[in-house]
Amino acid sequence: MPSYKAPLREYQFLLKDVLEIERYSNLSGFSDAPIDVIDQVLQEGAKFCENVLAPLNKVGDEHGCVRNADGSVTTPPGFKDAYKQFVDAGWPSLSSDPAYGGQGLPHIVALAWNEMVASANMAFGMYPGLSHGAYEAIHQHGSDAQKQMYLPKLVTGEWTGTMNLTEPHCGTDLGMLRTKAIPQADGSYRISGQKIFISAGEHDLASNIIHLVLARIEGAPQGTKGISLFIVPKFLVNADGSLGARNGVVCGKIEEKMGIHGNSTCVLNYDDAVGYLIGQENKGLHAMFTMMNVARLGVGLQGLSQSEVAYQNAVAYAKDRLQGRSITGAKNPNGPADPIIVHPDIRRMLMDAKAFNEGARAFTFWTALYGDLIHASPDEKVREKAEDYMGLMTPVLKSYLTDKGYANATNCQQVYGGHGYIEEWGMSQFVRDARITMIYEGANGIQALDLVGRKLGANGGRAIFAFLKEIDEFIEANEADDQLKDFVDGLRGAKQQLQEGAMWLMQNGMTNFDNAGAASHDFLNLFGVTALSYMWALQAKAAFAAKHNGAATDPYYDTKLATGRYFLARVLPETGAHLAKLKSGAAPVMALAAEAF
Amino acid sequence: MPSYKAPLREYQFLLKDVLEIERYSNLSGFSDAPIDVIDQVLQEGAKFCENVLAPLNKVGDEHGCVRNADGSVTTPPGFKDAYKQFVDAGWPSLSSDPAYGGQGLPHIVALAWNEMVASANMAFGMYPGLSHGAYEAIHQHGSDAQKQMYLPKLVTGEWTGTMNLTEPHCGTDLGMLRTKAIPQADGSYRISGQKIFISAGEHDLASNIIHLVLARIEGAPQGTKGISLFIVPKFLVNADGSLGARNGVVCGKIEEKMGIHGNSTCVLNYDDAVGYLIGQENKGLHAMFTMMNVARLGVGLQGLSQSEVAYQNAVAYAKDRLQGRSITGAKNPNGPADPIIVHPDIRRMLMDAKAFNEGARAFTFWTALYGDLIHASPDEKVREKAEDYMGLMTPVLKSYLTDKGYANATNCQQVYGGHGYIEEWGMSQFVRDARITMIYEGANGIQALDLVGRKLGANGGRAIFAFLKEIDEFIEANEADDQLKDFVDGLRGAKQQLQEGAMWLMQNGMTNFDNAGAASHDFLNLFGVTALSYMWALQAKAAFAAKHNGAATDPYYDTKLATGRYFLARVLPETGAHLAKLKSGAAPVMALAAEAF
Repeated sequence: MPSYKAPLREYQFLLKDVLEIERYSNLSGFSDAPIDVIDQVLQEGAKFCENVLAPLNKVGDEHGCVRNADGSVTTPPGFKDAYKQFVDAGWPSLSSDPAYGGQGLPHIVALAWNEMVASANMAFGMYPGLSHGAYEAIHQHGSDAQKQMYLPKLVTGEWTGTMNLTEPHCGTDLGMLRTKAIPQADGSYRISGQKIFISAGEHDLASNIIHLVLARIEGAPQGTKGISLFIVPKFLVNADGSLGARNGVVCGKIEEKMGIHGNSTCVLNYDDAVGYLIGQENKGLHAMFTMMNVARLGVGLQGLSQSEVAYQNAVAYAKDRLQGRSITGAKNPNGPADPIIVHPDIRRMLMDAKAFNEGARAFTFWTALYGDLIHASPDEKVREKAEDYMGLMTPVLKSYLTDKGYANATNCQQVYGGHGYIEEWGMSQFVRDARITMIYEGANGIQALDLVGRKLGANGGRAIFAFLKEIDEFIEANEADDQLKDFVDGLRGAKQQLQEGAMWLMQNGMTNFDNAGAASHDFLNLFGVTALSYMWALQAKAAFAAKHNGAATDPYYDTKLATGRYFLARVLPETGAHLAKLKSGAAPVMALAAEAF
Repeated sequence: MPSYKAPLREYQFLLKDVLEIERYSNLSGFSDAPIDVIDQVLQEGAKFCENVLAPLNKVGDEHGCVRNADGSVTTPPGFKDAYKQFVDAGWPSLSSDPAYGGQGLPHIVALAWNEMVASANMAFGMYPGLSHGAYEAIHQHGSDAQKQMYLPKLVTGEWTGTMNLTEPHCGTDLGMLRTKAIPQADGSYRISGQKIFISAGEHDLASNIIHLVLARIEGAPQGTKGISLFIVPKFLVNADGSLGARNGVVCGKIEEKMGIHGNSTCVLNYDDAVGYLIGQENKGLHAMFTMMNVARLGVGLQGLSQSEVAYQNAVAYAKDRLQGRSITGAKNPNGPADPIIVHPDIRRMLMDAKAFNEGARAFTFWTALYGDLIHASPDEKVREKAEDYMGLMTPVLKSYLTDKGYANATNCQQVYGGHGYIEEWGMSQFVRDARITMIYEGANGIQALDLVGRKLGANGGRAIFAFLKEIDEFIEANEADDQLKDFVDGLRGAKQQLQEGAMWLMQNGMTNFDNAGAASHDFLNLFGVTALSYMWALQAKAAFAAKHNGAATDPYYDTKLATGRYFLARVLPETGAHLAKLKSGAAPVMALAAEAF
């Protein structure tokens, strides 16, 4: 039975030493959350994730969700009680707006909490995760009346939410969607159509579900310009907030998936369901996409979360499993064999995961801090940079972290040998659960296109140039520091290659768009490795500083530095391959006629 | 519902144009199999795989195997009938020894057949696959009486076989095994102990199962030097060949696995079971390992097989699914959207799989031909080289082909977007089935250690030096050929890096064995890429030759060359990263104390 221990020391190091969030204590949100309060919140959260959610992870995988004959859905044993505890303890409201009952903590605090939840039980975490998406949409685009009606109960978790985009014939290409909305005399609409892959679409955890549904108002233009966003509650809500009639939305089927069995992935059939327009007519896609940065960052975090929990269990197994002898001489001479953690190739797999986890976590937190600054900073320049960075980093975080999260979960499963393939041991679940993160919220190929086609060139490349400049400044400020030399050298090389890749794209992607498409995957990965090497340089600097400031003997910092050096030696060399591949252009990729496949 | 079409044209091209097996028509086995006979055999085999086995693949995944209360096992619906057809048609005996009823065809023909079976239904293919392993062990190490008693019915498939190595506390490290054998007055033994992960361990397909079991004779030395190999039939066999009493071996449990649900992976409990020593006392591990090259090559082939079938289905989906528009302008302007095969990033995933499949298949066939020459060649030098090559290439084939097979199956699942995650579409099964190939028959990390620790240095590096020399000779013979220039240049670069990696290992692996262990994974992958680039050069040369010899307008050869050029542009750049990583040595990998993880 796998277990999970929240990486609290990592959060402390990142928030305090690396990001120094105490610098922002004058900003709203941050002012209510001095570092010791954050520590306390995360400690409590860790207990809940470790003791309540993690033990239910395998239960959820084995039992899955059951659709009953009446269309109702029963979640796995224990989920309902855990959700009640979750709501009673106030966890859903951490970073929500105090105007609607939220605690108003910085998003970066909620991020740590979300990582813990996803590591402990990713399928469970999706229920409140989707609610938060619905909350964001209504908070940003809803009318005051809508906010008053729906937000308080989404904030507490008394109700949950969903996002309804995909239909059987359209996923990425939402312009083709057919779900229709017919205007009614009272200003409401009647919604009819079928939505698929709706996570948390129907369940028994909450008394109501607020569906956010993309549909086309009768007579609206074809394509993406005729799509509107609607609120469709499972139970209509009376003016006094009490629940009214059951609305015309029913779960037609629960999908049999590769993983995340604990989450109910529903086919939802809308049949003359009452819906309320949110935001403007025909601007639904825009409203939906404003939530996407947050949601995509959350999915990147899920990739990391599965790498982290798989890593923790692989470490425990590698220390426990006795098999063979170290090739440099027995390390456990009195036992029948050595623990397999003595073997270099086992180390390689563990170090790959560890170096990724700590680099990726830093990248997520560093980006999420900008997410907070978008709203909290009084400085317009800072807000602009924060907005630029969020846009630029989001596709990288979503795609790079989920690809690597899956790869690491697979490697950690490999550490278990044959036992890794047996469901009883739990490693298969981490791999199967991680797999969806590469697909949903925009498949990773779409993220790469978003990066090269939209984010890279936006505002004349302002975001990427700012990032490259920031790295240059870091290098300049630190290249005289001998102890940082290998980190600075590694970063310099990666940054030069990223810059070369960006230049190649600017020169070749415009003349032939297929060059951009063909290069997108490798450019995104080159970006990911470079971003992580910057994160490792920042962490190394913070670790050295901490050592000099009285923590010289704390082994935590030496471990951190050794992990960073592993990244330099064993991950950084991948940049060259990515650059060479992307510069080979579209021709080899597009050479064949479709019939030749 | 996924489908499968056997790549018959690929087999023709490889056997006839690339490997020119007609050169060997004077050798035993080959003399009975002119190319048109082989064609015919494979065409018939293709029909069986496409029409009988492939439709049962998903059935096997969904139903799995059921252990009944009495310990008997029921295979998935349709498996028993398919197995009967399989036996009736004579498929099990293709390459078996005519002395025991086999057809005596070259192994390379059986290889093509095995790939088709594994693509169509990997879990089904494991039943005859394990039988073949048992056949090999008895054929090589059994007494005449044992051969007469067991081989004819293993050859026809009337009985099946198993290999029993793993126990709960030992897999890789078989020296720790505890299953014991007590000598009896009649020369037989009584076997007691528990074996786990026994593929095809119990089932309803055949009237008897011949278990090959590693056990320790009472009083034998500890460790690997006290292990013997035993034949333990499920039903004892009377002198006249009829079945006698049920032996003391029972299926205690069927494992719940991530995939290959159609194969019964059993815990087998041996309780005073009658067993017969095969080969010499305490030499059991040696006897077991002589089968390993064949078995490991077969597992490499399984990796390829899942990449191939996943690729075929991803191509079909990519041509069918309409979503978005080509970034260079609509390609299907009258439809609601373009088929997703127009998108460069979809192409990338398909081309990655295609370039791998065709390169890996060539590598497998090229190696298997040496496997045939070990036995068939009258030239001692050829036999020695063939033996060397089989030893050297086997870990590379097993590990590289399964790692990439899994990666490609995952990419092909990605082509399906959200539908790829839904079991109904069948892509998840290819990924889940492929996953085991990286683990069993020696986990891939063990393969890499076998390569650097045993195969590389054997006989003073004779095998690797011969391979490097062969590549040099190819380069020298072809570097003046303009049309082959990019293939020769690519091969030269890869070969130089492989050589540099080998030299680094020879210099650094001996002084610190951890350097060898830490480098093993990347060296194996560097070897894999280099071998495939050699295979692509051979295929390009054959394709040009065919074009010049009257097939100038056959689009097959242009497609082949374009696929090879994709490999050069998009796969070959990986060699540099592997070389840099391996040369970073053991220090970054082994830096942490075990407690620091």
